[in-house]
Amino acid sequence: MQKWHCFFVLIPMLVLGYGSASGADVSVSDATQECLDCHSIYHPGIVADWQNSRHAATTVQTAMAKTGAQRRVSSTEIPDPLKGTSVGCAECHTLRGASHADTFEHNGYDIHVVVSPDDCATCHAVEREQYARNIMALAEKNLSENHLYADLQRTILGTGEVRPDRVHFSPANAMTRADACYYCHGTRLTVTGTQVRDTDAGELEFPVIANWPNQGVGRVNLDGSRGACSACHTRHRFSIETARKPYTCKECHVGPDVPAFKVYSASKHGNLFSSMNRHWDFEAVPWTIGTDIQAPTCATCHISLTATPDGETINARTHQMSDRLGWRIFGLVYAHPQPRSPDTTVIRNRAGLPLPTDLNGTFAADFLIADDEMARRRSTMQRTCLACHDTSWVEGYFQRLDNTITVSNRSVRAATQLMQAIWKNGYAAGPDSGGSLFDEYIERRWSDIWLLYANNIRFVAAMAGGGDYGVFEDGRYHLTRALMDMQDWKETRELLKKKR
Amino acid sequence: MQKWHCFFVLIPMLVLGYGSASGADVSVSDATQECLDCHSIYHPGIVADWQNSRHAATTVQTAMAKTGAQRRVSSTEIPDPLKGTSVGCAECHTLRGASHADTFEHNGYDIHVVVSPDDCATCHAVEREQYARNIMALAEKNLSENHLYADLQRTILGTGEVRPDRVHFSPANAMTRADACYYCHGTRLTVTGTQVRDTDAGELEFPVIANWPNQGVGRVNLDGSRGACSACHTRHRFSIETARKPYTCKECHVGPDVPAFKVYSASKHGNLFSSMNRHWDFEAVPWTIGTDIQAPTCATCHISLTATPDGETINARTHQMSDRLGWRIFGLVYAHPQPRSPDTTVIRNRAGLPLPTDLNGTFAADFLIADDEMARRRSTMQRTCLACHDTSWVEGYFQRLDNTITVSNRSVRAATQLMQAIWKNGYAAGPDSGGSLFDEYIERRWSDIWLLYANNIRFVAAMAGGGDYGVFEDGRYHLTRALMDMQDWKETRELLKKKR
Amino acid sequence: MQKWHCFFVLIPMLVLGYGSASGADVSVSDATQECLDCHSIYHPGIVADWQNSRHAATTVQTAMAKTGAQRRVSSTEIPDPLKGTSVGCAECHTLRGASHADTFEHNGYDIHVVVSPDDCATCHAVEREQYARNIMALAEKNLSENHLYADLQRTILGTGEVRPDRVHFSPANAMTRADACYYCHGTRLTVTGTQVRDTDAGELEFPVIANWPNQGVGRVNLDGSRGACSACHTRHRFSIETARKPYTCKECHVGPDVPAFKVYSASKHGNLFSSMNRHWDFEAVPWTIGTDIQAPTCATCHISLTATPDGETINARTHQMSDRLGWRIFGLVYAHPQPRSPDTTVIRNRAGLPLPTDLNGTFAADFLIADDEMARRRSTMQRTCLACHDTSWVEGYFQRLDNTITVSNRSVRAATQLMQAIWKNGYAAGPDSGGSLFDEYIERRWSDIWLLYANNIRFVAAMAGGGDYGVFEDGRYHLTRALMDMQDWKETRELLKKKR
Repeated sequence: MQKWHCFFVLIPMLVLGYGSASGADVSVSDATQECLDCHSIYHPGIVADWQNSRHAATTVQTAMAKTGAQRRVSSTEIPDPLKGTSVGCAECHTLRGASHADTFEHNGYDIHVVVSPDDCATCHAVEREQYARNIMALAEKNLSENHLYADLQRTILGTGEVRPDRVHFSPANAMTRADACYYCHGTRLTVTGTQVRDTDAGELEFPVIANWPNQGVGRVNLDGSRGACSACHTRHRFSIETARKPYTCKECHVGPDVPAFKVYSASKHGNLFSSMNRHWDFEAVPWTIGTDIQAPTCATCHISLTATPDGETINARTHQMSDRLGWRIFGLVYAHPQPRSPDTTVIRNRAGLPLPTDLNGTFAADFLIADDEMARRRSTMQRTCLACHDTSWVEGYFQRLDNTITVSNRSVRAATQLMQAIWKNGYAAGPDSGGSLFDEYIERRWSDIWLLYANNIRFVAAMAGGGDYGVFEDGRYHLTRALMDMQDWKETRELLKKKR
Repeated sequence: MQKWHCFFVLIPMLVLGYGSASGADVSVSDATQECLDCHSIYHPGIVADWQNSRHAATTVQTAMAKTGAQRRVSSTEIPDPLKGTSVGCAECHTLRGASHADTFEHNGYDIHVVVSPDDCATCHAVEREQYARNIMALAEKNLSENHLYADLQRTILGTGEVRPDRVHFSPANAMTRADACYYCHGTRLTVTGTQVRDTDAGELEFPVIANWPNQGVGRVNLDGSRGACSACHTRHRFSIETARKPYTCKECHVGPDVPAFKVYSASKHGNLFSSMNRHWDFEAVPWTIGTDIQAPTCATCHISLTATPDGETINARTHQMSDRLGWRIFGLVYAHPQPRSPDTTVIRNRAGLPLPTDLNGTFAADFLIADDEMARRRSTMQRTCLACHDTSWVEGYFQRLDNTITVSNRSVRAATQLMQAIWKNGYAAGPDSGGSLFDEYIERRWSDIWLLYANNIRFVAAMAGGGDYGVFEDGRYHLTRALMDMQDWKETRELLKKKR
Repeated sequence: MQKWHCFFVLIPMLVLGYGSASGADVSVSDATQECLDCHSIYHPGIVADWQNSRHAATTVQTAMAKTGAQRRVSSTEIPDPLKGTSVGCAECHTLRGASHADTFEHNGYDIHVVVSPDDCATCHAVEREQYARNIMALAEKNLSENHLYADLQRTILGTGEVRPDRVHFSPANAMTRADACYYCHGTRLTVTGTQVRDTDAGELEFPVIANWPNQGVGRVNLDGSRGACSACHTRHRFSIETARKPYTCKECHVGPDVPAFKVYSASKHGNLFSSMNRHWDFEAVPWTIGTDIQAPTCATCHISLTATPDGETINARTHQMSDRLGWRIFGLVYAHPQPRSPDTTVIRNRAGLPLPTDLNGTFAADFLIADDEMARRRSTMQRTCLACHDTSWVEGYFQRLDNTITVSNRSVRAATQLMQAIWKNGYAAGPDSGGSLFDEYIERRWSDIWLLYANNIRFVAAMAGGGDYGVFEDGRYHLTRALMDMQDWKETRELLKKKR
């Protein structure tokens, strides 16, 4: 076993190279050692990643001994057999075996491929529970089980087929869905059978998992749980540095529908991150504003446990991402207060549609948080701002955000009025005639306004910067252009109709 | 005062951590110490930023003792009371108190919130004087006091209201303006009253400042001065590393109207910056090409004091950003020589409009720099290029820039001819019928060409790279498509008219 | 010569600063020393770049002494006079002087300005030979000598001229071409004469080279060779760190027509690169997955010699970039198997057009690689994936790629059917009436689909991530919108026609 031997010599070097923990004397469980014996040869990349991780460099017992804000393990009861070793391959991939539909016998062990949030909850119970209240945990359901969104999805992902009078869009197949919307929203995993593969270690049988691989935030797992911790805590290093840097959020929040990363990177905060982050500490827990960082990343404002240099907590860690957010700024069709339940399929507007507002902008208030809760969340967020800015500064930006919500919703209202006039005049087939709201060109111009441009404008206001994204890059310049285009199109149809 | 004590221990660590100056023995003024006593608790982020700054790590006297290119303080006369201590909170926020409308009594001191370029000029007189000649210093006025630009702004930022025959745009409110164009251009600050706030330190009275916060380059300050040094020299570290890295410029120069950052990042220079900057020195003054950096950032070419490894100055520092630029490459409506005065509201073309060219492209020559001045500025810029490239290389790129100016202006001329034909035929309401030039869809397609696409094309030529931004990303592909769209639209209207 | 002296003291510091080789005792040839004597004064930037390079820090002999995977010099026979010194200015710029049309007498030496791949082949013969089989080496020819692409190019780069019934596009001039498409594809260099310039060292004569400067991948050099090693191995440091980081590829692969960089940067791999690369080793040869890097860059998958931590080769180095690629995913008009020959001008579809597919999507199979070769290349690529991922993971993504190729080609087929109907009905002038396929608005909407949107969708599938680029950012949302726009345009024309 010469190969393994060579590799084994390397591991201590790797651990020492990053030197973030007392890795030298952390024992590996026998089961994990067996995994490593083969997988360090077959999959050296992920093994090295794990070797560089905190999971490899600490035991559960050591982690549990930390107190107060330094403690990263939130569960109070952790099974004894897990406590004495590092958190290795076997610790996670054999956990709760009976619950996982993909559990299979593998060299004497019952292994499951897909580790779920309920597995992670063994040590990180609080984060798991918070995440379950996170609207992101329901991202698969909220998209697939809302008939309006499903129709929008059909017209975006579907294959167009040219018919004499129109382009018809049939629903996309499962692989396209997994490649597109559900890449981020999460796929629904199912075990469809088993497969024998001829491997370097001989013939082995594996489960066949439909819609795998996927690490979307609302993935439906094979134990029935929803979510993927690995969406942000990338396998198998689970680096807090990665999770705290904005590139993780960028994976899903960079397009014109949710341009958070682009706006951030053009903001003052993003500028400071980009130019100065090499001087910052992305590993410290708690995360001390001033000492560790001098400007926020996405995580700082939305998730992280932050503290002042004298150790006072600024904000507690949350994995319910909306915990510090009053407004939901992306348009469905209008910006609106955050939903009460992470399951947004329950929402109905006054017309009975599964939308958080009426088409005229009135909030479906029964399903959305009330003013006092909005104020509480805003105040939580502002605690972070106030660590660097005075009250007048912070209030100034939040007033502008409120103004931008109001004004951008008003622009969406104008666009919707145009759209409704077009439907009413029969220039496009709208809801009253049983048509889709999303499958004609002029309807797409309408959705451009609330799905893309109004969003950009609001993200800039929300993030106190990134001016160009609010104007010339997918912002007001484009919103008003689309309005003009809709009016122009309507006029052309009116002229044409006169001649009929 | 346990809290403070804990924090105080940290400060030397922070200073040593960055280790850029002899911070240990720099005394803090009594007034600044009083500021720090509270604000280190309330605003630890900015206090840490300042602690890591050169302002905290040096006294004015030490800074004045530097000679030649190493000297960063350009004023020759600095008031004695400032000389012996670091440049702390009180040194800037109590300076010239009588000149600032926002000066208020705060714990025994006359403090003003908004530090202005005229405050900074106390030590940095030359930079302040150069910046006053910078067109950016007039960015607020040049936009708000030009009736044509104000009309363009109304159609972009204004809220659209659907009327029977058209979409009407009313001017945007102040908060929208501050959130959009004036985020970068700078807002006009005014004190509108005072407000008592219940703070952790008891009830305190503060001035209320309209259009605050803002750090736009042409901000109108409360002492009447224009500009914000903090636009680029970010508070409160004022890091030259940040100012020299391209992310600072990106805050305002990333959209399709001024795509400098995007083009740079796709250029050879940008590639080298991105891949190698961790090996470079962003703190050295002067900035030595070869030793400190091996490719330029925005600052290298446009602003910085650069030198050869043997200490010869390549270019003197300038804060008049146009000092090394002959052409003004963004379109109003055409690229044109730089204006003579930073106040562009004085410009009139032959038709009496406040534009640097006629609508046919003829330069408003009386208001623009002449050929000899263009040649002088080009030659200044080329000195930087020649530190790495030979004459034929440099000349080759500058010839291409001239060609691209000519050719892109020709394309804009074609688009303008189409637009003028459309106005003449009454398909859109143009200047002759008293209509806005910017509020109809076809007019927006015209402005796309000169405001977005032609700009991208020219930035690529000017920065010797970033090819895709000149072609498929907001470049020639889109410019010619917009031309085809205008022609197509005109044809449709002609066909419709025939039928009337 | 005081100046030079000062600089000379710096050089060892620079070399030691980066400390990657035993630079101290590497002798410089007399000829190179003469170059350095002047050019270190005139062009300190590039001299410093070279001083920091491996070329400066090693002799050819030392490089040749390396064995196995560590060896970077692939030629087995290298002329003796080159062996004893560093690879300096003279070593490259005087090589094969008789072959270069730009060779000129310069201070007693026969120098040529443009170093070509055939010069580099002196030491790097294998890489040069591989690169010649790379379709990129023919990028200039493949574009300029294909009459269909030339027509497309004319309508994109050409200057539009308004004629009564249409906008006419005349072909672009040479400087525009060099500034646009050929910036990346490479220009055709020719010597057009000589020029005497008054330099700091007196009057000197230089060759005048048309279409210079350029570093495009398919540049036609003055020795007749094609390519520019400096496109990726940036002069004069030739840093493998730069070549391996994705910013180099970004120079040409960032626009919507080839959005590789943007998609990568939003993928899980790109996230890991962005957040963690400061911990990685970009200089090691071979490049060890796990030890040196924990996620791939562009080079890892497409070019580099990669190894496992125990020293087994994962993939051999290749400079034929298509060596690990079965599909050619960008649209001409459809995605298709990679061409057999790097010279794609030889391809003819069944209609005799120089396109790799018919307009209905049928492959021009005689000119494209067959299934077995596609499988071989895919298998090579998958070896890299399998270093971190198991078989089911890897297969899952490759199946999705195949699905996306099929589905996106089907969408392009629908768009092409619409286009053909429009041509047939005479609403646009198509191939049958001798018109250009690319010079009318509706034709540009058609090309948007296959040239921009379908590409984005496929890049996301190919790179296993970057979801938003496949949907809302230049992806399916825009593809289906363009389809709807084409249908809408056709309907309008039909309504107009009815009235004629």
